[in-house]
Amino acid sequence: MSVCCDILLCGDFVHITALINYLKGEIPIMNLSQMTKEELASFKSENEKLYNDFRSQGLCLNMSRGNPCSEQLALSLDMLKAFDDGNFMSECGNDVRNYGVPDGIPEAKKLFSEMIGVNTDEIIIFGNSSLNAMFFAVQCAFNKGILGSKPWSEYDKVKFLCPVPGYDRHFKVTQFFGVEMINIPMTPTGPDMDMIEELVKNDETVKGIWCVPQYSNPDGICYSDETVKRFAALKPAAKDFRIFWDNAYCIHHLTDSPKYILNILDEAKKVGNENIVYVFGSTSKVTFPGAGVAVMGGSKENIDELKKYLGISIISHDKMNQLRHVKFFGTFKNMQEHMKKHMSIIAPKFNLVCDKLEKELAPLGIGQWTTPKGGYFISFNAPNGCAKRIVSLCSEAGVTLTGAGATFPYGIDPDDKNIRLAPTYPPIEDLSKAMDLFVICVKIAAAEKLLAE
Amino acid sequence: MSVCCDILLCGDFVHITALINYLKGEIPIMNLSQMTKEELASFKSENEKLYNDFRSQGLCLNMSRGNPCSEQLALSLDMLKAFDDGNFMSECGNDVRNYGVPDGIPEAKKLFSEMIGVNTDEIIIFGNSSLNAMFFAVQCAFNKGILGSKPWSEYDKVKFLCPVPGYDRHFKVTQFFGVEMINIPMTPTGPDMDMIEELVKNDETVKGIWCVPQYSNPDGICYSDETVKRFAALKPAAKDFRIFWDNAYCIHHLTDSPKYILNILDEAKKVGNENIVYVFGSTSKVTFPGAGVAVMGGSKENIDELKKYLGISIISHDKMNQLRHVKFFGTFKNMQEHMKKHMSIIAPKFNLVCDKLEKELAPLGIGQWTTPKGGYFISFNAPNGCAKRIVSLCSEAGVTLTGAGATFPYGIDPDDKNIRLAPTYPPIEDLSKAMDLFVICVKIAAAEKLLAE
Repeated sequence: MSVCCDILLCGDFVHITALINYLKGEIPIMNLSQMTKEELASFKSENEKLYNDFRSQGLCLNMSRGNPCSEQLALSLDMLKAFDDGNFMSECGNDVRNYGVPDGIPEAKKLFSEMIGVNTDEIIIFGNSSLNAMFFAVQCAFNKGILGSKPWSEYDKVKFLCPVPGYDRHFKVTQFFGVEMINIPMTPTGPDMDMIEELVKNDETVKGIWCVPQYSNPDGICYSDETVKRFAALKPAAKDFRIFWDNAYCIHHLTDSPKYILNILDEAKKVGNENIVYVFGSTSKVTFPGAGVAVMGGSKENIDELKKYLGISIISHDKMNQLRHVKFFGTFKNMQEHMKKHMSIIAPKFNLVCDKLEKELAPLGIGQWTTPKGGYFISFNAPNGCAKRIVSLCSEAGVTLTGAGATFPYGIDPDDKNIRLAPTYPPIEDLSKAMDLFVICVKIAAAEKLLAE
Repeated sequence: MSVCCDILLCGDFVHITALINYLKGEIPIMNLSQMTKEELASFKSENEKLYNDFRSQGLCLNMSRGNPCSEQLALSLDMLKAFDDGNFMSECGNDVRNYGVPDGIPEAKKLFSEMIGVNTDEIIIFGNSSLNAMFFAVQCAFNKGILGSKPWSEYDKVKFLCPVPGYDRHFKVTQFFGVEMINIPMTPTGPDMDMIEELVKNDETVKGIWCVPQYSNPDGICYSDETVKRFAALKPAAKDFRIFWDNAYCIHHLTDSPKYILNILDEAKKVGNENIVYVFGSTSKVTFPGAGVAVMGGSKENIDELKKYLGISIISHDKMNQLRHVKFFGTFKNMQEHMKKHMSIIAPKFNLVCDKLEKELAPLGIGQWTTPKGGYFISFNAPNGCAKRIVSLCSEAGVTLTGAGATFPYGIDPDDKNIRLAPTYPPIEDLSKAMDLFVICVKIAAAEKLLAE
């Protein structure tokens, strides 16, 4: 009984069906924690048999990264015909095949400023990687400071706040620069804002925070209006504190009635705080992960400074690819329509994962997980101390998951419990097999843990 | 007489025809310096009349950057059909549309390692900009050091050697990072090696040098074998000193019997000094300046370190564009053949510029210039103190040149004499007009100077 109550109290971590069934008294409660040692040993042994069957199959499946699948990649193939008309001219008069226009062609600014919710003079069009844009922004802060502040490299220590679980590649960027990262717990409405407000208030060395505000990576949480407003109104001791607002999944919905978070730059402007945030986005999961277009938005003052630095680091990004995108989509509305095609391919995969977890684990009271309404991941919390063991068991049987701990700074999950499941890439039959294996591994690890107690 | 002797003594700065004519006594020597004030005033006045005629035409021509022209861009259009076969797979099994393979697909490594003369495990394939690769390498040195050395950001002062005249964008990268730049005079065989060896010998803060070894920007000088060998054997006090060997024009010849410089990495390996150099190249002037492929090569140790950092700054560069290039060219030999098509388009433009200079200026003994055998520029040295005036006169009459001083660190040409002429972009009729204007402006500025003396 305690299990379902725990789950219920966790907000987004609710297994509705399991709860209803439980309340209706229709499913047998076989909570692992209520088993005797003998029952546990037998349970473990049964699952080890199933595990060994899997192992002998020589599987080779990869669920480690949020990669779109082949069907998704095929959705944008017509983009490659964009230049069949022989027209390479941007509306600004630049032949996009040639040099020039380092901050992006105006028609790309129009299209993507709508996507990330900024004005056309508040955006830079980068290359194919928003991570690279983030790296650049952090690097500029380290080498030049921000809007006249001292370069961060001149501090003995610079700190970043890191909502956890979060995106491993964010953490690696700040780790590269020697930043001290502070874990901030996620809640169903976003990161713990009380803690954030407290931490930034007096410490001038706290310089930034990593956020994935819509369908957070990996929890799939959408920041509440209150959370966005509190971020927008943040008054850190450091004038060069920046919120790195990675809106990677801003149009990546998994339902027909999507949630939208508040526009943080608009909110920040309302309270005269528009320099507080850098916004990022990309078409990596709209067109091609390897050949999309990445963008960065922010106040004109922030963007103008970074444009100046950008023009030193590169002559121009790939403007042919920018124009390809503009020609392919035409309007932002068309981009949104395009995303529905992605949804129809990947929503069934998310459903499959959630169904397997609910059917196989909910009745046993093992683990908690999210049922996201968008984004690319399902966040699974195993019993404490079991994540590494589960990932390792899966790996030995041929299924690669995101490394346990990856969702935390320095790769250290203090509870060794979070596993990021990425269901989009494998074909659904493979995914089904992988999830069958996954739940078996969870059962084994959970039983091992209880037996060792 | 002194003029021709000066010219003769300058090695690459020889006007052969003028010299022969002079020796044959066939051309009247109207050396400006031999004119009386009256003759000068009349000469100036005549040219001012011609200038005003030009000015009234409302020209609008751009010779400021080394941009390929439309005909050159058209040479690579078939590259856009590379995926008509529907095959997106790299030989390493990666679907190039998707994430992964941050250091470049193996088939691109094969193709481009031949271009820059390294092994396939000594290369990284970047995005569309070799400048961005150089920026990244400098930035990594600043934030992380090189192979265990202290990060450059921890020094009060870091110095770079800058052969002059040189490439403005190189200088801007080091200026961005606050590097102190030291001018190194160019000679007909490359930068002054005596001076370089002396400067690096004892000063641990001298960390690097910018080089364009083949068809140097803007002089078009090819470093001699001795120069390359001395670079390869350089033993700087700083273990993290690097030669930034920007081989931008390695296959960009303007004659059928091209010069080839020695392979610096090979030479460095011979003397156990392979970590001394970072090599760069790109297809910006092979396929599309805005959508080419940039590469960086070096010792395995250097490259392995940078691969590690690269994987933090980006998930992957645009591998579709890498495969596009591989499919279009197939072999390095085909790339070299392709460059002959470029040559046939731009060599007449270089000839036109040199002819105009020789016909109009050589007999007057004004200025010195190069007749490059490759690359993208003609370097013109006006009489001291005249470069800014010439560029400004041209600009007022509608012809934009590279800013005077741009070829020197901080934009400061101590003699105010060097002007970089970029003949590739304008149609040949426009170029002809622009050069007619240019020589008039040179004549006016030279006369003004002599009159003021």
